[in-house]
Amino acid sequence: MSTDPAALVVGVDFGTLSGRAVVVRVDDGAELGSAVTDFRHGVVDRRLPGSGRELPPDWALQVPADYLEVLRTAVPAALAAAGADPAQVVGIGTDFTACTMVPTTDDGTPLCELAEFADEPHAYVKLWRHHAAQPQADRINELAEKRREPWLPRYGGLISSEWEFAKGLQVLQEAPAVYAAMRHWVEAADWIVWQLTDRYVRNACTAGYKGILQDGVYPSPEFCRELDPGFEHFVGQKLEHPLGQLGGRAGGLSARAAQWTGLPEGIAVAVGNVDAHVTAPAAQAVEPGRLVAIMGTSTCHVMSGAALREVPGMCGVVDGGIVPGLWGYEAGQSGVGDIFGWFVEHGVPASYHDAARERGISTHELLTELAADQAVGQHGLVALDWHSGNRSVLVDHELSGVVVGQTLATRAEDSYRALLEATAFGTRTIIEAFTGAGVPVTELVIAGGLLKNRLLMQIYADVTNLPLSTIGSEQGPALGSAMHAAVAAGAHPDIRAAAAAMGSLGQVVYRPIPANVAAYDELYAEYRTLHDYFGRGANDVMHRLKARRRVAAGQRGMAEVDA
Amino acid sequence: MSTDPAALVVGVDFGTLSGRAVVVRVDDGAELGSAVTDFRHGVVDRRLPGSGRELPPDWALQVPADYLEVLRTAVPAALAAAGADPAQVVGIGTDFTACTMVPTTDDGTPLCELAEFADEPHAYVKLWRHHAAQPQADRINELAEKRREPWLPRYGGLISSEWEFAKGLQVLQEAPAVYAAMRHWVEAADWIVWQLTDRYVRNACTAGYKGILQDGVYPSPEFCRELDPGFEHFVGQKLEHPLGQLGGRAGGLSARAAQWTGLPEGIAVAVGNVDAHVTAPAAQAVEPGRLVAIMGTSTCHVMSGAALREVPGMCGVVDGGIVPGLWGYEAGQSGVGDIFGWFVEHGVPASYHDAARERGISTHELLTELAADQAVGQHGLVALDWHSGNRSVLVDHELSGVVVGQTLATRAEDSYRALLEATAFGTRTIIEAFTGAGVPVTELVIAGGLLKNRLLMQIYADVTNLPLSTIGSEQGPALGSAMHAAVAAGAHPDIRAAAAAMGSLGQVVYRPIPANVAAYDELYAEYRTLHDYFGRGANDVMHRLKARRRVAAGQRGMAEVDA
Repeated sequence: MSTDPAALVVGVDFGTLSGRAVVVRVDDGAELGSAVTDFRHGVVDRRLPGSGRELPPDWALQVPADYLEVLRTAVPAALAAAGADPAQVVGIGTDFTACTMVPTTDDGTPLCELAEFADEPHAYVKLWRHHAAQPQADRINELAEKRREPWLPRYGGLISSEWEFAKGLQVLQEAPAVYAAMRHWVEAADWIVWQLTDRYVRNACTAGYKGILQDGVYPSPEFCRELDPGFEHFVGQKLEHPLGQLGGRAGGLSARAAQWTGLPEGIAVAVGNVDAHVTAPAAQAVEPGRLVAIMGTSTCHVMSGAALREVPGMCGVVDGGIVPGLWGYEAGQSGVGDIFGWFVEHGVPASYHDAARERGISTHELLTELAADQAVGQHGLVALDWHSGNRSVLVDHELSGVVVGQTLATRAEDSYRALLEATAFGTRTIIEAFTGAGVPVTELVIAGGLLKNRLLMQIYADVTNLPLSTIGSEQGPALGSAMHAAVAAGAHPDIRAAAAAMGSLGQVVYRPIPANVAAYDELYAEYRTLHDYFGRGANDVMHRLKARRRVAAGQRGMAEVDA
Repeated sequence: MSTDPAALVVGVDFGTLSGRAVVVRVDDGAELGSAVTDFRHGVVDRRLPGSGRELPPDWALQVPADYLEVLRTAVPAALAAAGADPAQVVGIGTDFTACTMVPTTDDGTPLCELAEFADEPHAYVKLWRHHAAQPQADRINELAEKRREPWLPRYGGLISSEWEFAKGLQVLQEAPAVYAAMRHWVEAADWIVWQLTDRYVRNACTAGYKGILQDGVYPSPEFCRELDPGFEHFVGQKLEHPLGQLGGRAGGLSARAAQWTGLPEGIAVAVGNVDAHVTAPAAQAVEPGRLVAIMGTSTCHVMSGAALREVPGMCGVVDGGIVPGLWGYEAGQSGVGDIFGWFVEHGVPASYHDAARERGISTHELLTELAADQAVGQHGLVALDWHSGNRSVLVDHELSGVVVGQTLATRAEDSYRALLEATAFGTRTIIEAFTGAGVPVTELVIAGGLLKNRLLMQIYADVTNLPLSTIGSEQGPALGSAMHAAVAAGAHPDIRAAAAAMGSLGQVVYRPIPANVAAYDELYAEYRTLHDYFGRGANDVMHRLKARRRVAAGQRGMAEVDA
């Protein structure tokens, strides 16, 4: 389609800790160069930058200026790495974590950049994994159920504390001055496009999945008023904005952004998108039944389906939410690589790190090697993967992790393997929810950094009893963003065509090993029993522990003030 | 009472990893010198010494020659440290872990010292924490309940896999040749006295608590035959032997043992005793209501009571089992310091060890310091302390550890504190069982190495809501053994008099802090809910995980042989 075989696009993937830019050839998807910029402030979950003001538990903020730094550094570096002539670049596309929300003024200035709000936590970006709006989410769910709001089943029956309404309501209730000053409550996915184009276009994907826009309407003012009288006009005054479709052209690259990036002014900038959702076409998963799991710090599952079904505990279903013309289903696991990383950092003795260093491998690799040497069940453990709560199918961020079965003979590799398995059981729970609701899953495609762990991949194949393939690109989201840029620039007619030309699947296919499948069936039964016991109300100990933790942290905080 | 104010006694305490000798003045209990010898082979739980033969899970053996080395090295070293004239020593007393069993020939030679059995695991000492005889214990309990054996309630309704019958039955069923060659199935507590005196005297304490001797009789041949036809004459042929009472004189020190120890030939050797039980008089706990918890790798609880009561899940009640004239009650926790040690060794990152080293303190001390800085419940965790199974009140060694509530914010000090608390909850569970059965507990006295941890002591006071004092001696069991030696030598008329003259309590008393008591009441309720869920049949996942672990380890073993 592309008239110029040398035409290039740039995809920029904004993750939890860094942004990655990749330069891709429009013709065949060849990735010519890439570069990563770490966010200067990372995840702000303990103290505000500057003042050092302490944050309560479950908060997770970011600093929007960190995102612009990615445009100024990673994009030019990727161009340089590709040895590319910027003049060949015809478009740029971006994807972002979601639901990550920026409170802004009328012109898009983040409120935290105003002097009056620099020390106000609610003026900062609320990262997807900010989980402190759970009381607001509880209220939304309770009320929606009572009122039988028609949109509730589209979200598996539960609205997440991570999403636009819960986070917005938290701002109103805890920081009314910030709420009053906030003209737009903007997905970071759209904020970054606003910075690139000087135009605010709201993307249809997050508006649907995170903003409760269904069949063209948001939750009603009556609903919002019943949540809180001050919230009545939330949609009209803070949220609503003209939409752009995925792969659409949000605008042309502004002069300012051209200067930041080194790209030509006026080239196509694609409508904002979400990291997980852009990855599906990058993995050529544009047809029903092929579930893409993007496995990184957390896992996002996306799949297209021909029909609208209500899947209990899914994150959401949105018409054209992934690919135009199909229903896009989304589910997720709040913690995956995060949990492995936490364990390696905080639960592994020095001898493992030393041994790994001596061999020139990572501690993850060493633990994987040791764990791979075990038969299924040999460690005697079963764990629940809820260290960051549960996004699907329980949709409860007050849940927490569990390990059952430790003995004095338990070693780090045992616990590590149990955590790998727990996340696989979590994925199987989601697959069973889809299949049970009439949205069959026939194949797993894995994208994201964790696909390099072969043991993990085999465990997923064995636990789910599904063939598993991996995406060909090591930078799936950035590639997906580049593909959307190509569509926005008119270099491909639509995302299906772009997927066919530019997407790729890896050569390795993991097939279930029957003996392991049988053994994991039994361990999965244990997981599900514990899942339902701790997750469905039989024993709400996790909720009580978290409540007590907040009380105790408060006491301790006061004691420190007193002291 | 002692006619010679300079008269000395030696107490030797055989623990799990080492033996400690202490030289004590008979008159006032002054501890003049002590020495420790580590067991050369420690706990043999992976491979047999010599052949390197691999042991199955849950095995724990020892090498009897290691015990003699303590007599040859620690006793002379203690005498030297005391600057004592051996001629002043009038008696020696010993205490041992229990139930730790030695299979011997007619003359007391351990079977593992015979060439034909050197590579046979069943010919070695089965340490108290050998937990591989659970199937045998299950069978004993099932049959005893069916036959309504009158002795069963004396053991809280359950016979432990750690004890003489279960371990003996395992030898019969798994190594009939060893069983046939075994003339005596001897408590290590008595075997060491046999080595000192050349006479085998069976002590009344372990015969009652571990050997099911009640009201003068053992389980019947009919019962044993129904367990296994080959087991019919177990009592008559392997177990039964004339008894000695606690504080009695087993015999005089043999010439051979005098040479080993440097002590005068012919001095009084006290009847064998158990580490926990000798500690009660050392802590002056010879009256009802004062519960002594000897807290080391595991915790043993001993208390005397005026009346015979049946306490569910206690280890046992034995007439005169601690102090003549009172019913001696015993309960226990299979893992305490063991669990803390396991966690520090296998679950704490290098940064903590480094920080501790820099400050010249232990990692335990550093973690305790960090944990002490938290309000109750601030870590958001609750754990079950069953890493070594549960000895009271569930009596089930197939149970295992649990941690609930981990998040990505969980740090090592959080988990450490949760484990400290879990063991305190375990002690409270035992106290409530006693009190509920009409054996009131009014005061806690702590002995053993863990009493040095002030945070742990305060947690125990807060969790149990009882005043808590600590023993004055740092080597309670060895002091208690020395007191029994003094009684055996006639230097004190009985153990009460010896306790009054030689025992001691520390100056520190920990009193419950009301706010903590209230908070821990709530956390304890969580513990009890999980305790009953995992421990009383609602979810037998731990049993299934252990069964699967054995199967998987077996597969792996075969795979290695195949490879």
